[in-house]
Amino acid sequence: MTLPVFGIDIISEVATPAVVFDAVRSALIAHADGRTSVPAPMVLEFPQYAGDTHVKAGHVAGAPYFVVKVASTFGSVNNGLVLAVDATNGQPAAVLADEGKLTAWRTAAAGALITDAMTPVGVDEVAVLGTGEQALLQVLWLRELRPLRRVKVWGRRPEAVERLCTQLRAADLHATPDGLSGAPCVITTTAAREPLPLEAFHAAVHITGIGTDMPGKGELPPEVFAGAFVATDDHVQCLHHGDFGNAVRAGVIDPDHDVPVGAVLRDGMPRHQQSVADLTGVGATDAAVAGAVLSQLVR
Amino acid sequence: MTLPVFGIDIISEVATPAVVFDAVRSALIAHADGRTSVPAPMVLEFPQYAGDTHVKAGHVAGAPYFVVKVASTFGSVNNGLVLAVDATNGQPAAVLADEGKLTAWRTAAAGALITDAMTPVGVDEVAVLGTGEQALLQVLWLRELRPLRRVKVWGRRPEAVERLCTQLRAADLHATPDGLSGAPCVITTTAAREPLPLEAFHAAVHITGIGTDMPGKGELPPEVFAGAFVATDDHVQCLHHGDFGNAVRAGVIDPDHDVPVGAVLRDGMPRHQQSVADLTGVGATDAAVAGAVLSQLVR
Repeated sequence: MTLPVFGIDIISEVATPAVVFDAVRSALIAHADGRTSVPAPMVLEFPQYAGDTHVKAGHVAGAPYFVVKVASTFGSVNNGLVLAVDATNGQPAAVLADEGKLTAWRTAAAGALITDAMTPVGVDEVAVLGTGEQALLQVLWLRELRPLRRVKVWGRRPEAVERLCTQLRAADLHATPDGLSGAPCVITTTAAREPLPLEAFHAAVHITGIGTDMPGKGELPPEVFAGAFVATDDHVQCLHHGDFGNAVRAGVIDPDHDVPVGAVLRDGMPRHQQSVADLTGVGATDAAVAGAVLSQLVR
Repeated sequence: MTLPVFGIDIISEVATPAVVFDAVRSALIAHADGRTSVPAPMVLEFPQYAGDTHVKAGHVAGAPYFVVKVASTFGSVNNGLVLAVDATNGQPAAVLADEGKLTAWRTAAAGALITDAMTPVGVDEVAVLGTGEQALLQVLWLRELRPLRRVKVWGRRPEAVERLCTQLRAADLHATPDGLSGAPCVITTTAAREPLPLEAFHAAVHITGIGTDMPGKGELPPEVFAGAFVATDDHVQCLHHGDFGNAVRAGVIDPDHDVPVGAVLRDGMPRHQQSVADLTGVGATDAAVAGAVLSQLVR
């Protein structure tokens, strides 16, 4: 068996934001429509190395490939790859040795799509909580979808906040280190295991949380779910280990009080006061992005 | 990132029965001792192609690699690969493009080890139910551990029974198509979804079942568990979707009435009348075999 391995350089060439946005949007809508197959993910933990590895699989009905994705975070270093398998015969088709970038991009795309869809038109001020790779990407990819006038940054380490502000300014964004002062749109990207400061959300019309991706994590204070319009990327998964589940277990919201983010992307938002999107990451988006990339590489 | 991909030819050279037996035995004992990390496996089904894909992951504590394995069966064709990842930093280390062979061999090794350990010394007559790749391998690998005087074969399709008998005879085994007449040692290797004929087990002192690896499958009649000494390769997994679980749900046996196969390999068998081993396949054996193979390839 020859198994082509595509490296990050060639993947970067074809995985343009347009390709990734389109694949992720389609996959989230397909997932909302029940046209995907996404087994519960696997997690392996390596506490002695501050490491955890998530294995996700997914298939969008009718797509030529399904994927198995291995994404690791050891300390602050992300790594991984995506295996694409022919869905008609089980034959491994290719390895996308993406060093975790496809996951980063599909997470950024999913977050940006749903943040844009759920935040009222005209809102151009966001606060981002967390200072890692996703803090930067969520803002940059959102800026592809709507103009941003100001970005407020919050993190526990001042030097990390300053570094992110510098990165955002290098991208021509007006970034300041005052995330706790709030904004109408708040994006949380931390690995927190305790809720973030409630004050950061006092001005929020919409909140997108992307950091709570395994049991034991939790970044959104349960209070922000009270009375909110809530969208989840996967009902069962978010109930199991997302901030939505944390809020349900805190008794703040009912377990059936969510809609699929794909339904919001498909149908638009109803009128509302306040909204929360809980994104835990679904394998269908990995499958769609890998399939889109691979179809460019092997055609 | 350069990711070496090792093909089946070079894998076959280093994955000798001795290497595989040693790795599988150690992994099963480690699993019994709680020194492994094995998330619940993922299954994707592709009914339009008679296909299913199992994704398993595993790590034996202290081992340099953990593995993620993708194993597919579409129709009668097995396929797949094993990804080895550095357990200290999450970096993908190598792909073993094994076309499903490492899974076949570790399944054969696990079955042969436990069949040999649980079947009284001197028994040299086995019946094998099922006529696929594992029917052949379970017998051939068991013959590495003890002499076999006679092999009785049963399957639903006479031509498949005849083919397997021919293959066994080519390996100098005395094989005959009369598996339903029973034998003191019975090995079941089918993809059955209904129990196999009870008469095939009437003479059994020991039974090893390896075919029931996902919900909906079931090959051992629940009756064979009644009063038997039962060993499982993973208690939770066998309870969830093994024949042990089917027997528990049939009310024939209590859900805590099993011991780990690794404990049998470690400590030997107690005196008993009749025994059953339920093997569903654990990721720790994949990890151990892949690690053993890789350590030969990269040293």
